[in-house]
Amino acid sequence: MSQKSHPAGTVQRWTRTLIPTLRDAPAEATTPSHALLLRAGFMRQVAAGVYDYLPLAWRVLTKVTRIVREEMDATGASEMLMPALQPMELFEQTGRAEDYGDNLFRLRDRHGRETALGPTHEEVITDLLRTAITSYRQLPLILYQVQTKFRDEPRPRGGLLRGREFIMKDAYSFHLAVEGVGGLNEAYDAMYQAYSNIFRRCGLDFTVVEAESGPIGGSASHEFMVNCETGEDTILRCPESGYAANVEKCEIGERKWGFDRGAGTPSASLERVHTPDMPGIEGVAQFLGVTPDRMLKTIVFEAADAVTSGGVKWVLAVVRGDHEVNEGKVKAAIGFRAKLADEARAKQAGFAIGYVSPAVVQQTGLRPEDGVRVIIDPDAAQGNIAWATGADERDHHVRGFDWRREMGAILDDQRYVKVADIRNARAGDPSPRAPGSKLVEQRGIEVGHIFKLGTKYSDAMGLAVLDEGQQRRSVIMGCYGIGVSRTMAACVEMSHDAEGIIWPAAIAPYHILLTVMKPDDAAQIQAAQRLASDLGEAGLDVLIDDRDERPGVKFKDGDLIGLPVRLTVGDKALAAGGVEFKHRSEAGKGEVVPLGDAVARCVTAVRA
Amino acid sequence: MSQKSHPAGTVQRWTRTLIPTLRDAPAEATTPSHALLLRAGFMRQVAAGVYDYLPLAWRVLTKVTRIVREEMDATGASEMLMPALQPMELFEQTGRAEDYGDNLFRLRDRHGRETALGPTHEEVITDLLRTAITSYRQLPLILYQVQTKFRDEPRPRGGLLRGREFIMKDAYSFHLAVEGVGGLNEAYDAMYQAYSNIFRRCGLDFTVVEAESGPIGGSASHEFMVNCETGEDTILRCPESGYAANVEKCEIGERKWGFDRGAGTPSASLERVHTPDMPGIEGVAQFLGVTPDRMLKTIVFEAADAVTSGGVKWVLAVVRGDHEVNEGKVKAAIGFRAKLADEARAKQAGFAIGYVSPAVVQQTGLRPEDGVRVIIDPDAAQGNIAWATGADERDHHVRGFDWRREMGAILDDQRYVKVADIRNARAGDPSPRAPGSKLVEQRGIEVGHIFKLGTKYSDAMGLAVLDEGQQRRSVIMGCYGIGVSRTMAACVEMSHDAEGIIWPAAIAPYHILLTVMKPDDAAQIQAAQRLASDLGEAGLDVLIDDRDERPGVKFKDGDLIGLPVRLTVGDKALAAGGVEFKHRSEAGKGEVVPLGDAVARCVTAVRA
Repeated sequence: MSQKSHPAGTVQRWTRTLIPTLRDAPAEATTPSHALLLRAGFMRQVAAGVYDYLPLAWRVLTKVTRIVREEMDATGASEMLMPALQPMELFEQTGRAEDYGDNLFRLRDRHGRETALGPTHEEVITDLLRTAITSYRQLPLILYQVQTKFRDEPRPRGGLLRGREFIMKDAYSFHLAVEGVGGLNEAYDAMYQAYSNIFRRCGLDFTVVEAESGPIGGSASHEFMVNCETGEDTILRCPESGYAANVEKCEIGERKWGFDRGAGTPSASLERVHTPDMPGIEGVAQFLGVTPDRMLKTIVFEAADAVTSGGVKWVLAVVRGDHEVNEGKVKAAIGFRAKLADEARAKQAGFAIGYVSPAVVQQTGLRPEDGVRVIIDPDAAQGNIAWATGADERDHHVRGFDWRREMGAILDDQRYVKVADIRNARAGDPSPRAPGSKLVEQRGIEVGHIFKLGTKYSDAMGLAVLDEGQQRRSVIMGCYGIGVSRTMAACVEMSHDAEGIIWPAAIAPYHILLTVMKPDDAAQIQAAQRLASDLGEAGLDVLIDDRDERPGVKFKDGDLIGLPVRLTVGDKALAAGGVEFKHRSEAGKGEVVPLGDAVARCVTAVRA
Repeated sequence: MSQKSHPAGTVQRWTRTLIPTLRDAPAEATTPSHALLLRAGFMRQVAAGVYDYLPLAWRVLTKVTRIVREEMDATGASEMLMPALQPMELFEQTGRAEDYGDNLFRLRDRHGRETALGPTHEEVITDLLRTAITSYRQLPLILYQVQTKFRDEPRPRGGLLRGREFIMKDAYSFHLAVEGVGGLNEAYDAMYQAYSNIFRRCGLDFTVVEAESGPIGGSASHEFMVNCETGEDTILRCPESGYAANVEKCEIGERKWGFDRGAGTPSASLERVHTPDMPGIEGVAQFLGVTPDRMLKTIVFEAADAVTSGGVKWVLAVVRGDHEVNEGKVKAAIGFRAKLADEARAKQAGFAIGYVSPAVVQQTGLRPEDGVRVIIDPDAAQGNIAWATGADERDHHVRGFDWRREMGAILDDQRYVKVADIRNARAGDPSPRAPGSKLVEQRGIEVGHIFKLGTKYSDAMGLAVLDEGQQRRSVIMGCYGIGVSRTMAACVEMSHDAEGIIWPAAIAPYHILLTVMKPDDAAQIQAAQRLASDLGEAGLDVLIDDRDERPGVKFKDGDLIGLPVRLTVGDKALAAGGVEFKHRSEAGKGEVVPLGDAVARCVTAVRA
């Protein structure tokens, strides 16, 4: 499948294509990639979160998708193309019409049929396969597409980082089993490897992180994150074991806990304080004269339904005031589906939302047998601290809360109380993989996400095949996405300086910028054309800056668009039979190399 | 730009991709390409006029677009990508919101902003260039994209021939002048040549026809038509001169005419006949005892506005009863914008719509000075025929109409009466290019259309640049479209037989179908894999039919999907060191060729 020889490169003249560079970025551009891609003439906004990709950007996207296709094909996947227009009925079958809400672009056609613009294609492909496959002999199967997606983001931002129309590669795999040859895990591992190859070949610095688990559980989902300080996602990493996860998923190593006061820990009396009009835990802590890490925060969840929860109705999740409750971990700890409590219903049941304490059962009279559970994070389950927390009454808090004194023996009732990791990890937390090691934090931009779907869609939509024993079995699915246009933007976030973009050679729109100092000078333009032709023959893509502009403007624009190598054809070097050679990533003026050596130098620089 | 060497071909196994063939086509498939692309597992319907392109179709589309890109790039055009989401304001600036009407998909985003799904991109690209270019030095410029278009067709039909979501290549060119180096005509001619190359390289049998002129006039528009009997467009062609045009555009050679009765032509008396409840000219003719070619049909037009028409209000276009009035020709003959008359207004003015005669002025009293003109087609301007026509009263006709007797000297008043070609051409009409030669008719499917736009969009939207003298000048534009998905369907319409599709090698999804009779036989599968690997090395794409199916099923499916060459690996041939070789386009069983010769034979067959 791969090409054995280098095809000839492209040679293009600046004046014959469209590269509308700007001196300044529009005010709305707040991230480096947004500002630089606009300034360097890679894109223009058509509407909020909707862009024209101009020729330079299209060349980058073409190179990224070529790498994506080669690696997808190598896994045995087949490319196809699904439509943007999708009947709303499909989304109703899986319940995702509601999940997506206003993020789904909806329209009615001339006959009044409700249609969505595809935000992704699980429904369409599952619907297709319902009739297209019937037997286990047609499995496994991996299909993918590179296609335009639509999501009506409430706040499109960062240019291509979060747009409303964007290019995505989405792949879907179909299996009879999870394990073994042809199973989901095999395809998932192949995709993991293919994604690693893709981002490595694109020249990106990235981290693979564990992400929130799917219904299958285990290590069911990974995100591929481009490492960069401006990323909006937080990654936690254990430097010793290599473990990395996003903040939603990251486990925390063992922490000591206990509800009883340690010997020598003085007891404090419980004191009730009126705390009116205090927004946020910071304000309350300050008013009470404590730090947030000495406060307990109690979040009320309600079970999605009484059947799966075994009769449990309310779950109180208790963490330290400076920590964030992690919903996924709460669900994992309780073992059933739950969501943040509806405020009205919770108040009705006696919970003073915003002022709930772990001891609220004492106030409400609710007992384990009434369907209440308390899940406490280990860092909050410390008996040697006089905690501040809510007073179970609006505008009131308490100081001097003591777990054992306030709650008594019920703390030992395992039907009722459980201590478990239910908070987001953060830098400095103990690593879950290497005892003694601490997690460090870094920022990233998610460019890929692979996921074990299991039978979520095939069950909802009735995708099944006959197995060897002629039994109908739900098809097991995986799905695998890459944000293609976002990858381009993430690369710019990762690789730029004050002057402009610095493209990795593999996805640079052209490899070489050939700047002609005086394009109306016949000797210069001839030398440039000969050089460009030789570079093209050597498989390099060349952009000739043949504009009638001052050298300063050309060099500035050259740095802005960020091609890996700049060759400059000027009188002085030419008279000496040479051309100026300069890496974009290196400072200074560059060096004069003999014309005869220029191609070899460029090839070495680009293929390095 | 072109690749100098053959990259390795693709080898794929049938069981690892998705080719869901069907025994019968769904009832809604009424054209060959619709039925065959469904049956052969190339596509599936998602909604009316909206399809999934399955892997085989995607491979065809990829090959078509590769050819399109190579030829576009060779013209110096730069590829880019514009979005599907387009603000409605842009369409309002050019008036096309109204022109498109219900064909435009419209939606409101979460903030209530009205948005269209792009049916084409003249507005978006003109808007882009308004700020991206400022000087004549940035011209000429040719930009193109391969992109998904959306049109809410009232009756999607023919599968991919008229869909609601389809793939198009659209190019736009920008110039300071029409003539000369860098002018519109130069780009138009280059596009004409590129389009010819593209369709020839795709293996299509096609005709280039003159199409309805744009505002610039002259030969301002050409359509590229795939020749096939099932085409919905009619093409007229002069076998002697090579002239070809679509029915809307086709000129007709000179025809003799005269209003006076020839010597010896008997006069008939004018007879008034009651003709109630007669739908259509056929019924009336039959009732009157004449043939439609002895009837006059008078269509009433009204001028778009009195300023451009110089005071003319009504235009009566008279053709023979068996001919069709051509609106474009009527406009060309009168020299101003006009449209079919509003029925209510025309009746008010005294025209008995459906029963109008050329002599209606005698009834209404309307004279040249009242703003009436009569344009008569030469075939209708015959004095030696006793015509039947309307009686200028509802439900009444006349027989024995004589031009000179009924209209008198006014016929010679050139302010009032003009004889001109105002009807659609048809087979048998005199050629406009070769005297004595007659036009012949053929059917076609439009796959490309090139157009000189002039300044229509740049004037409407204010796209101008400064010329050498620092004067602001409107940019002159051309636009150039290819229906990519329609090209695939047109190819199937053109090239199939009772058994299935017959792909030209250049755009076949794979070149070789390698059928393994017994895929569980180690010797057969090994021979097949070795052969496939060698074919791949030689640059051919190979599909191995490794399904556990009866030979009859495999051969039937093989003919259905229509790859150019079938190789069959079976016991008998294999024992003799051979493999069966068969062209898809040739009948019979094929011949056994030595294994060692198979690759060379395939290469010859595919590259032929």
